[in-house]
Amino acid sequence: MHFSSRVDISAPNPIASAEAQAKAQGITLGKLNDSNPTRHGLAPTLVPSVYTADPRGPRMARAALAAFLSDGEDRPDADDLYILSSTSEAYSWLIKLLCDPGDAVLAPKPGYPLIESIARLEGVETVEYQLQFDGSWFIDAAGLEEILDSPHGENIRALVLINPNNPSGSYVKPDERKAIVELCGSHGIALIADEVFYDYSLEPFAGNARLAGEPGVLTFALDGFSKMLAAPHAKVGWIQVSGPAEDVAEAKRRLDVIADDYLPMSDIIAERIPALLEAAPAQTTRVQERVRGNLTRLHELLDADSNGLVNVLRAEGGWNVLLRVPSVIDENELVLGLIEHHKLSGQPGYFFDMTSNGYLAISLLPEPEEFERNVRAILDEVAALLAS
Amino acid sequence: MHFSSRVDISAPNPIASAEAQAKAQGITLGKLNDSNPTRHGLAPTLVPSVYTADPRGPRMARAALAAFLSDGEDRPDADDLYILSSTSEAYSWLIKLLCDPGDAVLAPKPGYPLIESIARLEGVETVEYQLQFDGSWFIDAAGLEEILDSPHGENIRALVLINPNNPSGSYVKPDERKAIVELCGSHGIALIADEVFYDYSLEPFAGNARLAGEPGVLTFALDGFSKMLAAPHAKVGWIQVSGPAEDVAEAKRRLDVIADDYLPMSDIIAERIPALLEAAPAQTTRVQERVRGNLTRLHELLDADSNGLVNVLRAEGGWNVLLRVPSVIDENELVLGLIEHHKLSGQPGYFFDMTSNGYLAISLLPEPEEFERNVRAILDEVAALLAS
Repeated sequence: MHFSSRVDISAPNPIASAEAQAKAQGITLGKLNDSNPTRHGLAPTLVPSVYTADPRGPRMARAALAAFLSDGEDRPDADDLYILSSTSEAYSWLIKLLCDPGDAVLAPKPGYPLIESIARLEGVETVEYQLQFDGSWFIDAAGLEEILDSPHGENIRALVLINPNNPSGSYVKPDERKAIVELCGSHGIALIADEVFYDYSLEPFAGNARLAGEPGVLTFALDGFSKMLAAPHAKVGWIQVSGPAEDVAEAKRRLDVIADDYLPMSDIIAERIPALLEAAPAQTTRVQERVRGNLTRLHELLDADSNGLVNVLRAEGGWNVLLRVPSVIDENELVLGLIEHHKLSGQPGYFFDMTSNGYLAISLLPEPEEFERNVRAILDEVAALLAS
Repeated sequence: MHFSSRVDISAPNPIASAEAQAKAQGITLGKLNDSNPTRHGLAPTLVPSVYTADPRGPRMARAALAAFLSDGEDRPDADDLYILSSTSEAYSWLIKLLCDPGDAVLAPKPGYPLIESIARLEGVETVEYQLQFDGSWFIDAAGLEEILDSPHGENIRALVLINPNNPSGSYVKPDERKAIVELCGSHGIALIADEVFYDYSLEPFAGNARLAGEPGVLTFALDGFSKMLAAPHAKVGWIQVSGPAEDVAEAKRRLDVIADDYLPMSDIIAERIPALLEAAPAQTTRVQERVRGNLTRLHELLDADSNGLVNVLRAEGGWNVLLRVPSVIDENELVLGLIEHHKLSGQPGYFFDMTSNGYLAISLLPEPEEFERNVRAILDEVAALLAS
C-alpha cells in the first residue's frame, strides 16, 4: 500500500523512545512542559472534563460508537474508529494520508462536486469513473480497470465509492464490490467508502451490505450524524479502518499523526455522543418515512400528469432522486425558469457530470405540501418551456 | 497579494448568477435539491436548531465574539471573523489559501514543531527565521529581509508570527511590528499572527498590542478558547482578517470556499459560545495567577539553590519558560535522567530549534506543590549529572 510523504514518521528521538518504553512498562511520567491546563485543576466549570487529547477522539465516545455500529457478530474495534467533525474532514485527512500533491483519487460520475473541491484543496486531482444507467445504475468495472492500467492510473492512490451514490441513489452490488476490492488490491490503492446514506434504502435488494469493515483491502468507511441523525449541524463524523492487518496498522500509525495535529473533536460534543447515538435509530426511521412518502407521492404526481413529459430514475437509496425531462429542454433554461416563475432553484444534471442533458435532482426531504408544490412547479415549467 | 490555485473561483454558472441576483433583490429562493433536514422539520430534538451552514460559523456566535473582542473604539466586524475548531485548523486553511504545494511559509525559531508538521501535511515547506536573545528576545529583521530577498524567498507566501512566541515568551515589539508589516507589504506576503498566549503577560511593557486588526498588510490573527479559557477541549478557535480592503475582500472570497467545504463549527458548541466568552476573563485571570505565582516561586528556588547552575531566561508572556542549564550537560542525557530518576519527561531546547545546547522548557501551569517538585527534580538531576 502506498502512503504519502506528507506525514513525518522519522525515527523517534531518544526522549520519545524512553517515553514509549516507560508507557509499555506501565509507568506514568509527569510532563515538565505540559501545556494542558485541564490536567492542573484549571479547566473552566463550563467544560469541566480533563482533556485527554486522544487523536482518534475520546475513548468513551469511540466505545459507545463501536457498540452502536455492532452488527450482531461483527463489532468494530473502538481503536479502528476515528471521530472527527465531518466526512469532509475525513476526506481531507485520507487524501493527505494517501496522496502527495499531484497524485489523484478516483471518484464516481455522476457525483457531487464536493470531492473534487476537497481534493483540489489538497493539491490532488480527481479522476472520474463512470456509473451507467440501463434501468438501474451499475459501475463500469471494465472502464475502471482501464483507467487504473492507463499511464494516468499510476498516480491514483484511492478509489472513492459512495454507497449509495448521490444523486443516482445506487448501492454497490455484491459483484461490483468483489470486482472493486480485487482491483484496489491488485493496484495497491485504498478504498474510501462514503456510506452516509446507507440506512436510507428506497428499494431493498438481497445481499446489500456496508463496505465498513471490508477485510479484503485497506478500507476507510465514512459515516456520521449528518444523515443518520438528520443532524448536519452536530458536526460528528467518523472513519472506520479495516483491511489486511499490516496495511491497517501502518495506516493508523500515520493517520494518528494527522489526527494529532488537528485534534478536532470537542469534549462538549463528545460527552453527548452516547445520547445522540441512542436517538439515531428513531431519527433514521422518521426521515426514512418522510423520504419514502414523498417518493410514493412523486410517482403518483408523475403518473397523473397528462403531459407525461417527466419521469423519475429508479433510485435504490438516499434522499435525492433524479428527474428526467425532455432533452430538448436546456437544463439551465429550466432552472432559470423555475427561479423566475416559481422562486425555486435547483441542480440540473450537469452539476453532477451526467453524460447527457435533461436531468434535475430533487430532494425528498421537504414536508409533503412543499414537496408537492415543488413537483407541480417543475411540471408546469417543463410544459411551459415545451409550449413556448 | 498572492493566493494559491487550490481554491476554485472560476466564473459562476448561470444558475449561481441568478441565485446571487435574487438574493441581492431580497428574494428568498426555495431549493429543489435541499439536503438540509433541519429546514424541513426533521432536526432531532437533541440538537433542535435550524442549521444555517454559514461558512464563517453561526452569525450569532460571531456577533458575540466580535463584541467580546471589542477594544473600546475598535470593534471587529463579525464578518471578518471565521470560527473554527482550532488554531491548527486555521493554519491549515490559511496555508491552503496562500500556498500551492512546494511554496513555503516563514516560521520563528525557536518555536514549536507543530507549524512545520501542519505545513508539511499541506505539501508546503517551512523556512525558519531567527529570534535572538541578548537578555531579552528580539526578531532579526535584517535576517528576515535577507531570506525574503534570496532566491529561496520567491516561494514564501506567509510569515507566521507568534505573539508572544512559545517557548521564548517574547512579544512582538512596536518597532519589530512596523518592520515586519513593511517587509510583508513590500514582498506581497500575508501575516499569520498566532496570539493565543497574548493575554498571559508576565512582564508588561509599554506599547504592547495585538496584531489582530492590523491594517497595513493582509493579516490573519488567530486566537481561541484553548489558552484564553484554559479549555483546549472546547475546540473553539477563530481567524480575524484585516488589512487593505481589496486584499481582505479577495482573501475572504477565497476563504469562504475553503470554509464552505469543511463547515467545522457545530451548533452544539456555537450555542454555548456566548456563555463561554462570559467565563473567559475570570479564567484568564485564574490561569494568570497560577502562572505568575509559579514564576515567582521559580525565581526563589533558583536563587536559593546553592549550586547556582540553573537560571531562567526572561519571558515576557505565555505559560512556559526556558531554563538554561550548564551547556556541558547533554540535553538528551538530562531528560533521560529525569525520566529514569524522577519519572518526569520534558522538552529540551533542540525540540524548538534552539541554536545551542543547554535548555529545557518548563510549564508554569502545574499546581504549586507539583511545580516545586518539578523544579527541585531538575536541580537535583543537573547537580547529579555534573557530579558524575
